[in-house]
Amino acid sequence: MREAYQSDLRHVVEDLVHMASLVENAIRDASTALATGDLALAERVIAADMTIDQRQIDLDEKIVEMLARQSPVATDLRLLVAALRMSSSLERMGDLAEHVALSARRRYPDLVVPEQHREALATMAELVVQGVVDAATVIQERDLALAGLVERRDSDIDAIQSELYRAVTRADDLGTEQVMDLILLGRYYERLGDHAVSLVRRVAFLVTGEAIDAHSPVTDVPEV
Amino acid sequence: MREAYQSDLRHVVEDLVHMASLVENAIRDASTALATGDLALAERVIAADMTIDQRQIDLDEKIVEMLARQSPVATDLRLLVAALRMSSSLERMGDLAEHVALSARRRYPDLVVPEQHREALATMAELVVQGVVDAATVIQERDLALAGLVERRDSDIDAIQSELYRAVTRADDLGTEQVMDLILLGRYYERLGDHAVSLVRRVAFLVTGEAIDAHSPVTDVPEV
Repeated sequence: MREAYQSDLRHVVEDLVHMASLVENAIRDASTALATGDLALAERVIAADMTIDQRQIDLDEKIVEMLARQSPVATDLRLLVAALRMSSSLERMGDLAEHVALSARRRYPDLVVPEQHREALATMAELVVQGVVDAATVIQERDLALAGLVERRDSDIDAIQSELYRAVTRADDLGTEQVMDLILLGRYYERLGDHAVSLVRRVAFLVTGEAIDAHSPVTDVPEV
Repeated sequence: MREAYQSDLRHVVEDLVHMASLVENAIRDASTALATGDLALAERVIAADMTIDQRQIDLDEKIVEMLARQSPVATDLRLLVAALRMSSSLERMGDLAEHVALSARRRYPDLVVPEQHREALATMAELVVQGVVDAATVIQERDLALAGLVERRDSDIDAIQSELYRAVTRADDLGTEQVMDLILLGRYYERLGDHAVSLVRRVAFLVTGEAIDAHSPVTDVPEV
């Protein structure tokens, strides 16, 4: 019984890591579709989001069953509650990747992002993907030094978003639709970065027992 | 012991309803500050978000303690897990209200929203506030007919957002900053509406045992 229980707990962590890898692929593919105008790839990301949603439903069901059957306490209970939160974040990240893909599809065969802003978007995408990869490692290995790196990288993402918004505000060669796309895409990537931070903070809380959320909220308002 | 436990469960519901009323006030005040350029009111909303954040932390702590001490099963367990999710939604709604207030503050003493778009924003704000009020009633009274109304009202909010985005796209008298503000404000209200739906769906799931999330996801992508 105890052994099965420990194995269940390990499976929860594995499920989270697996969800993170699905999310990583979704963000990567959506960003490629955005950069290259690859409609088929965008469609695949949009279709695949259902898989991520279903993973969350299954994982949550498993966690509720464990809570009911095992009545875990202390660290194990905290892990399960944190896992509920993390699966929510990952599901939402899947939605945001889908939004990027939908944006690419909406303007096809045009490219959404005007040339002068492509580098900013590509850099945000890269940093976000790296954030998800690292968050998965943090979930698996509880490496708090790496968690700190995810936090610092999120500040870089915020800075690029602010710079992008300022550049858009200054630009006089953008159509209104382009402005709209850039503002929303900036916001999607920025939110993705926040969710990666939220994932690693949950792990940090499990390890240290100290909530950092309360005193240093994740910034999600662009400074323009 | 049992009695104390039942009373704890009732307190969880009361705490959620109270958080909802704080969120309702935050959205209402932020929307007034946006419409009237009331800087002091915007500042109050921004400062008050900490209270909502702290309520979530306290409520979550209480729920985890109940899970640990009472080892609830079946309906009670589902209620507590749903409450964890609902407190997350409410906390996020507080953030979004704060974003509206920050937007008002950023452009002070100018009004953020150009005259021709004020009605759309004011209507979205009203519908969102009504959604939160009704969601609180649904949480307290488990009135699924009212839950249906919250869902339908969210479709109206989405429709106004889409119309706003189309109007912004067609407009030739808006500065880029104005476009940016309108797009982000439209998004904040639309997300607020989604969260209200998410709250009532959690209650519907508790009552009926049927998840509707899986098959009818909340739409959060504007059709433009």
